[in-house]
Amino acid sequence: MPTIDRLQSDHYRIPLDPPVEDSMHGSMTHFEIVTATVTDSDGATGTGYTFTCGTNGGAIHDILGREMPPRVTGRDPDLIEALWHDLWWQFHYGGRGGPTVLALSAFDMALWDLKARRAGLPLYRLLGGHDPKVPVYAGGIDLHLSPSELVDQTHANFAKGHRHIKMKVGRDRLSEDVARMATLRETFGADMPLMADANMKYTVDGAIRAARAFAEHDLVWFEEPIPPEIPDGHARIGTEGGIPIASGENLRSLWEFRTAIQGGVTFPEPDVTNCGGITPFLKIAHLAEAFALPLTSHGAHDVTVHLMAAIPNRTYMEAHGFGLDRYIETPMTIAEGYVTAPDRPGHGITFDRDRLEEVRQ
Amino acid sequence: MPTIDRLQSDHYRIPLDPPVEDSMHGSMTHFEIVTATVTDSDGATGTGYTFTCGTNGGAIHDILGREMPPRVTGRDPDLIEALWHDLWWQFHYGGRGGPTVLALSAFDMALWDLKARRAGLPLYRLLGGHDPKVPVYAGGIDLHLSPSELVDQTHANFAKGHRHIKMKVGRDRLSEDVARMATLRETFGADMPLMADANMKYTVDGAIRAARAFAEHDLVWFEEPIPPEIPDGHARIGTEGGIPIASGENLRSLWEFRTAIQGGVTFPEPDVTNCGGITPFLKIAHLAEAFALPLTSHGAHDVTVHLMAAIPNRTYMEAHGFGLDRYIETPMTIAEGYVTAPDRPGHGITFDRDRLEEVRQ
Ligand SMILES: [Mg+2]
Ligand SMILES: [Mg+2]
Repeated sequence: MPTIDRLQSDHYRIPLDPPVEDSMHGSMTHFEIVTATVTDSDGATGTGYTFTCGTNGGAIHDILGREMPPRVTGRDPDLIEALWHDLWWQFHYGGRGGPTVLALSAFDMALWDLKARRAGLPLYRLLGGHDPKVPVYAGGIDLHLSPSELVDQTHANFAKGHRHIKMKVGRDRLSEDVARMATLRETFGADMPLMADANMKYTVDGAIRAARAFAEHDLVWFEEPIPPEIPDGHARIGTEGGIPIASGENLRSLWEFRTAIQGGVTFPEPDVTNCGGITPFLKIAHLAEAFALPLTSHGAHDVTVHLMAAIPNRTYMEAHGFGLDRYIETPMTIAEGYVTAPDRPGHGITFDRDRLEEVRQ
Repeated sequence: MPTIDRLQSDHYRIPLDPPVEDSMHGSMTHFEIVTATVTDSDGATGTGYTFTCGTNGGAIHDILGREMPPRVTGRDPDLIEALWHDLWWQFHYGGRGGPTVLALSAFDMALWDLKARRAGLPLYRLLGGHDPKVPVYAGGIDLHLSPSELVDQTHANFAKGHRHIKMKVGRDRLSEDVARMATLRETFGADMPLMADANMKYTVDGAIRAARAFAEHDLVWFEEPIPPEIPDGHARIGTEGGIPIASGENLRSLWEFRTAIQGGVTFPEPDVTNCGGITPFLKIAHLAEAFALPLTSHGAHDVTVHLMAAIPNRTYMEAHGFGLDRYIETPMTIAEGYVTAPDRPGHGITFDRDRLEEVRQ
């Protein structure tokens, strides 16, 4: 049996041009990518990554690059549950969330990629295997856009193959959010699947007020109306606001998802690069299935497409707005609102390391 | 008004000789200290620190030493709520827990120390100010000790001034835990305040079984029977097990404490070095008071004594077993189970930096 020979981590800081903006993070000028590459004793490799909104990348890199290697070299890379559980507990006191879980997510992804590559299977076939064709939506970062700019951006997304659209909300004046939403509905019709994302802007009462104002525009979901620190606050928003509630990009474990689902989240949206990796992502999907809930996702669509292709309860997957595509050899192509998981072994993503070298930290 | 001129962070790795052991962390050979020193534009200083069980220290140091300084220099150090809130959100996506919150805890402590030193007041007087004399307990790390070794350790703790004792539980055989507990009761009598700490070892049902076995020995509390990932599991343990439940050293925010208290924790035990600092520690104390609950604590007793001296609902404070005292100029002295918060300005702790230099990372 091969064992883990090396774990190599690299940290890149990528400028966002123009800067992007949402209701709680303000203006973001950079995002960070931290990669993890596992090489086994036969020389086979697997690659994982995580990303940040511009902070904590050095912390993630320290854990992946300095602390994890002596703990995982010599171990059997196929025993991912054993490795995941051991690392969760070895790092638990200062971990359980934050940079530690983002690091674990990247390592876990690398192990699954290695396993699938060794098996000669695309990830979605190594995993459950359901349907490689996955519905996708354009996750615009557009809080600062005027109604007409928002229409232009949506036309551009349609030209890229998108048919399902998410807009940001959370302006200081609710009427401006409603006006932007109304313009999208007028321009693109009543049947275009439309979501809205508040990035944790509101209180529970404020979210109910907003949800009622949005309700006539028939949203598929209202995303992150409140911070994840109030998991039991979602039920009132869904019930009194009359819109389904999505949340999850800021939850860092299977157990946080359990609490959020019991608290009223009906569209769980894990991010494979920050929920602990592919191992917990699939458990979160199955937890959602047990509650008869559809699963959406956040970020990292190039890898996530395999996870959505592996499960029966997937709904629209997010195609994120960051510029990672420029650093990937074969970015995802979208047609009529769908993407198809690639049939290359593993997740099939190869980073353009020469180009990334220019933004190494 | 002075502004923040510098934030300096240092990372130390201190060997534990002999290694200590508990039910979930296994054998711990080192602990880490990461310090934060704030210097204002008048040259006044404040110092904070956090510690780990041996992992994540480099991540904390990267955040405190590299990421935070450009975000806090030039800011008004008195506006701690504003700084805390801004940093919480600037680091939220990759933060919300883990190394990020341990770093924030150290910085927040440094700001309060600076404020108290500038005011010429000991921390407990700058804060609410209740009673400088605080009951304390010896938090033994003794899972591997036999009954007779446990008796010897307890005699040694009495010789140091302790009168209140906590033992570790969570051996694979419950009968061994019960026998060790029975020996302590036989030797030190029915009235010695005695606690037991399982360090998250059990399932809910397993914890109920253990609590029932411990109940005849009249524990003050049963600590961390289950992982913090199951906050709503505590109620059954307390009710069906018949023992009060303590938890908190692995909770990383005010909001996690709210969920845990609503989930059945009746002795909240925040750690000022990992709950986000003095700012949230006091809010957690006041939250507990609102629920009519006594507050205990974890770790960092030399600083925590001021916080317990500032609030009315404090109960036994933990005196931790790590060897930090060797690196502090005036360690805490215990008499008849009590300690008194020092009247020096600030928290009054000065690290022996020459000695720490030998273990710098
Ligand atoms: Mg979102
Ligand atoms: Mg404890």
